[in-house]
Amino acid sequence: MQAWIPGICSGVFDLQNKKQVGKDKEFMFKVTFQLEGGESIEAFAAEGENLLEVARKTNVAIDAPCSGNAACGKCRVKLIKGEIDSKKTSHISDEEYEQGWRLACVSKVDADVEIMVPDIASAYKSRMKVADLDSAKEIEIFEKTKADIEAAGIEFKNDLEVVRVTMEVPSLDDTMPDNERLTWAVEAACGMEHVKIPFAVLKTMAETLRKYNFDVQCVIRKGGDKAEVLDICGPEEQVKLCGLAIDIGTTSVAALLIDMKKGKILAKASTGNGQIRFGADVINRIIESLKPDGKEKLQDAIVSETINPLIKQMCRSAKISPQKIYRMCVAGNTTMNHLLVGADADPVRMEPYIPTFYETTSIHAHDLGINIFPHARVIMAPNIGSYVGGDITAGTLASCIWNRPEMSLFIDLGTNGELVFGNEEFMMSCACSAGPAFEGGDISCGMRATDGAIEACTIDKDTMIPTLSVIGDEGQKAVGLCGSGIIDMISELFRCGIIDPKGKFIREGDRVRHDKYGMGSYVIVFKEDAASVKDVEINEVDIDNFMRAKGAIFSAIRVMLNSLDFTVDMIDDVYVAGGIGSGINMQNAVNIGMFPDISRDRFHYIGNSSLSGAYALLLSNEAEAKVHDVAHNMTYLELSNEPTYMDEFVASCFLPHTDAGLFPSLTFK
Amino acid sequence: MQAWIPGICSGVFDLQNKKQVGKDKEFMFKVTFQLEGGESIEAFAAEGENLLEVARKTNVAIDAPCSGNAACGKCRVKLIKGEIDSKKTSHISDEEYEQGWRLACVSKVDADVEIMVPDIASAYKSRMKVADLDSAKEIEIFEKTKADIEAAGIEFKNDLEVVRVTMEVPSLDDTMPDNERLTWAVEAACGMEHVKIPFAVLKTMAETLRKYNFDVQCVIRKGGDKAEVLDICGPEEQVKLCGLAIDIGTTSVAALLIDMKKGKILAKASTGNGQIRFGADVINRIIESLKPDGKEKLQDAIVSETINPLIKQMCRSAKISPQKIYRMCVAGNTTMNHLLVGADADPVRMEPYIPTFYETTSIHAHDLGINIFPHARVIMAPNIGSYVGGDITAGTLASCIWNRPEMSLFIDLGTNGELVFGNEEFMMSCACSAGPAFEGGDISCGMRATDGAIEACTIDKDTMIPTLSVIGDEGQKAVGLCGSGIIDMISELFRCGIIDPKGKFIREGDRVRHDKYGMGSYVIVFKEDAASVKDVEINEVDIDNFMRAKGAIFSAIRVMLNSLDFTVDMIDDVYVAGGIGSGINMQNAVNIGMFPDISRDRFHYIGNSSLSGAYALLLSNEAEAKVHDVAHNMTYLELSNEPTYMDEFVASCFLPHTDAGLFPSLTFK
Repeated sequence: MQAWIPGICSGVFDLQNKKQVGKDKEFMFKVTFQLEGGESIEAFAAEGENLLEVARKTNVAIDAPCSGNAACGKCRVKLIKGEIDSKKTSHISDEEYEQGWRLACVSKVDADVEIMVPDIASAYKSRMKVADLDSAKEIEIFEKTKADIEAAGIEFKNDLEVVRVTMEVPSLDDTMPDNERLTWAVEAACGMEHVKIPFAVLKTMAETLRKYNFDVQCVIRKGGDKAEVLDICGPEEQVKLCGLAIDIGTTSVAALLIDMKKGKILAKASTGNGQIRFGADVINRIIESLKPDGKEKLQDAIVSETINPLIKQMCRSAKISPQKIYRMCVAGNTTMNHLLVGADADPVRMEPYIPTFYETTSIHAHDLGINIFPHARVIMAPNIGSYVGGDITAGTLASCIWNRPEMSLFIDLGTNGELVFGNEEFMMSCACSAGPAFEGGDISCGMRATDGAIEACTIDKDTMIPTLSVIGDEGQKAVGLCGSGIIDMISELFRCGIIDPKGKFIREGDRVRHDKYGMGSYVIVFKEDAASVKDVEINEVDIDNFMRAKGAIFSAIRVMLNSLDFTVDMIDDVYVAGGIGSGINMQNAVNIGMFPDISRDRFHYIGNSSLSGAYALLLSNEAEAKVHDVAHNMTYLELSNEPTYMDEFVASCFLPHTDAGLFPSLTFK
Repeated sequence: MQAWIPGICSGVFDLQNKKQVGKDKEFMFKVTFQLEGGESIEAFAAEGENLLEVARKTNVAIDAPCSGNAACGKCRVKLIKGEIDSKKTSHISDEEYEQGWRLACVSKVDADVEIMVPDIASAYKSRMKVADLDSAKEIEIFEKTKADIEAAGIEFKNDLEVVRVTMEVPSLDDTMPDNERLTWAVEAACGMEHVKIPFAVLKTMAETLRKYNFDVQCVIRKGGDKAEVLDICGPEEQVKLCGLAIDIGTTSVAALLIDMKKGKILAKASTGNGQIRFGADVINRIIESLKPDGKEKLQDAIVSETINPLIKQMCRSAKISPQKIYRMCVAGNTTMNHLLVGADADPVRMEPYIPTFYETTSIHAHDLGINIFPHARVIMAPNIGSYVGGDITAGTLASCIWNRPEMSLFIDLGTNGELVFGNEEFMMSCACSAGPAFEGGDISCGMRATDGAIEACTIDKDTMIPTLSVIGDEGQKAVGLCGSGIIDMISELFRCGIIDPKGKFIREGDRVRHDKYGMGSYVIVFKEDAASVKDVEINEVDIDNFMRAKGAIFSAIRVMLNSLDFTVDMIDDVYVAGGIGSGINMQNAVNIGMFPDISRDRFHYIGNSSLSGAYALLLSNEAEAKVHDVAHNMTYLELSNEPTYMDEFVASCFLPHTDAGLFPSLTFK
């Protein structure tokens, strides 16, 4: 049977980078990490060194969404040989402890030891997924975004261009140096008055110009009467003018490789954010970045371990050189943006929550170490606050709610929840600390929407036997619950009267258990039928965690609307975005009181709107200008300053809500 | 007795960088270089590998001005242990061969071997010289340059400034991000409309602003209504706003560290150009740069081995952090400029001699790897052709000939000779391949003007015994002749009738010898009295080489003036610049027909005019604009296109000239 570590996935293991740590210290023990994939990595640890820390330094991926505070119980590893000083915790049963299971975060090295790391590293690798573009579904959403934005009067045109430039070949009578010769020729070819040649081009132009006898194609960027020469290519080359749109989520990173001339998607891929081994949420990441070399480590985790491999993979799939990517657009939250550029993110988390930048235009790929054309401009979708970032402004752009008369609510369910409400006349945004529950975090059997995840379910009211829909090939056994599965599960448990409005188990049966402290749980899959070392079950703590998450969303909607003198029934449309998956059952989400009770056909799942927003910004200079308009016109509401928020939140932590009147379409028995 | 390698000095030996080469090859031999200073360096060489190449790869400095063609005879090393496959050449006598002397460039490794490298590396180190600024002489020339340029109406003012910027401390009610907050505050403080924050500053500003509670000083660069924030410092800091002026010569590099606010020189230093181990002249350097990784090696030799140590030394002496150097001005010839930026210099040497750039404004210190403030702008004095570079335009600026009604001739005697003739109305420039003779190259006993160099001499006409002036402390023995010494020597040999107008020895005596081929030579110092393994002597080949050098200068003057319908007697003033030394005897230079026969009091030695020009460009934006005017207004005459040049050159290769009428003030017996 396959051992597993559930839930939010882990960092990345870099084969090129087997570091040995602690070598200079006086007492050293050898720690051998046996990865389930078969790989074995050696490290050295000082006496008493924390096992999770050793793994991090060695780039061995061990999942630790709580950042090593023994809170989440996900960093479980198995002792194979030797001993380790490890506290017992409630996350490991006596039987499991007996078998050698330990939490890495509470284990201290005090001898040579061999540790089995469950299949996280390879799970991570498999998650580097290049989409099959032949499937219309993969492209559809971007084409729809483009059509919507174009319908709003935004032209899909950008300032990158390939120009054929033919110069006089220099002679003793014509001794103009290369840079002036090219400048003049480009000016003549494009009707520009000021042509700039950046240093990187200056440095290499002599060879290229001579190789092609001063008859070349130039990749240029036009702006007003100015142009900048980005690259010089041969006259016959089929110059690929590519761009990269990238959504940097706290948990996942998704990207598109795009032909900038044709607007065609050449590759689409996604992977986990390599920073996850430094914590599941932005706060833990920021804290990690404050440690010595922390900023560099976090930047390295997202750039070298995540984005660069993703680019390599996509370029290989599309048969494009990364050097042909001349522009990049990033949509990420404010913390991700700061950690990406290597800026101090601490002020993002500390009152008064002032980041270094909302907008910045001065960044190029080489500044960040991103392996594309070094002088490629990096467009960053603007942040509007410490907790409403470029992912939301890009997503709002993609949703087109700024162009509609209808009152629309845009909800992005990422590692946190962000909301935008408004229409063509105004917009307000807020962020709520929903936590990582929608992506499977904070849930004992939670996981992301990958193979083995239960993405949907129903429960037979009489037998309490569930019918599950599991992601993966035919016969794939269940590992855990992803976001949409949790929504269905709680909705069904509630509908079947197995749990009460407070999320407490009130029926008895085979599948319902209570432990010695009285905590109830429901067995979704018995371990015999699961791809797991234990039963897949959901317990009252999980349900409570999820109810707080959904409560945070609903109360945020209520408070934001209240602040504008709106009520939830005045919402015309709801646009749901994020990694929760297209399988989300909107009826169930309303049933549990997560979304407002409006007509189900006014709910629209718009997928990864950050990525489709980034796609638009990359391809259209007008869209880039528009997103700044959108950002400037968006008010930010700091929920924690709203006196009613706490009461609203508490009232929302019920199924569906303490005020049933807010959900008139639901019938309760 | 101390062994020696004469003449132009060598590269640099980097203790940090003991590389072992050839390790991957099948047959390897160990080569141990014993430096005379006591250091020992090991390398590995493949069978048959050239010893000079092995030394270069290992960063062991062996002098090879002819770039390893067995032509100059300067790469002599001594076999200590083992054998080496080494051809005999005319540069090593039988006796010397017996003693173990070999030319590295013709030696092939075919066994483990131990090689003594004469005292070049340490000679090189001693040449890193920080000037004593208490000596008025060191400062004088720069103050004079400044006064002259100011007299021409150029203001000594630059666009760098330190501004106190006090911001509102952010709060929950004032959530402007750091970059906008600073931008607004700087705009308000300076009355600027557009303030730019470069990426490097963006990345680190959060910490600095918070450390000083949003009350800081900013180093800014102003231009029109725009400003750029270069650095952020504490409110109480005595912000040093420093600049670096640097003259990159083919042989030597000299620099000034300057307080940009006060215009005060904080340090002055000079060193050898580390590229010299790749050849003494620009052509050999370019050829070396075409080899694999050649551009990187040449750039590394000038940046990491030469400029960065020089900066470190000066900063240490002035007690300044290199990070406080916010601007840099480079004056170098066209090849040096191209090798500095890592551009392909091959077109500089190949017809039609078209470099990548004459002018470039897009370079910053970090582009070149120079260890100062990374975003420091690098001003490059403009080149006007492949053989008239920024050293000459900067030097011309410093000479102020562009501001005088008098007809002036500016002569820069560097590794080549460059001339500018004109006045406030016009200027023409040309370059002549004088070769490295003025710096001691191409002369068997030639050397640069360092300790042991004979810088002046007279000869007793009767006894033929010379009276020498040797650079160095009391009792310093002679090693060889530097440029000014060679001029004196040839002038005196001619005056005393020891050589004829063709440079052939025509008197007999103790000191005059003829070898078996009939080649005459004159012993300047017998080896017993010299700091050398052999007699210091000058032979007919040396004299011939020097006569071709001086002939190149004089004929260039003639041809350039002819092309303008001028004659040499119409020159009002001659400004002599370059490393030949302030000790140059102008009378003797006229005697040998090197300089035109005008009144001696119209000759002006202006020292290192490239460096004083760079000093002006650094401190004054108007001077920077002016040097571009000067460059644009300067015509370039390609001497090799002039039909009369060959005849003029041949006629000038006599003492003083075949047409004695050109030197009316000289009386000949």
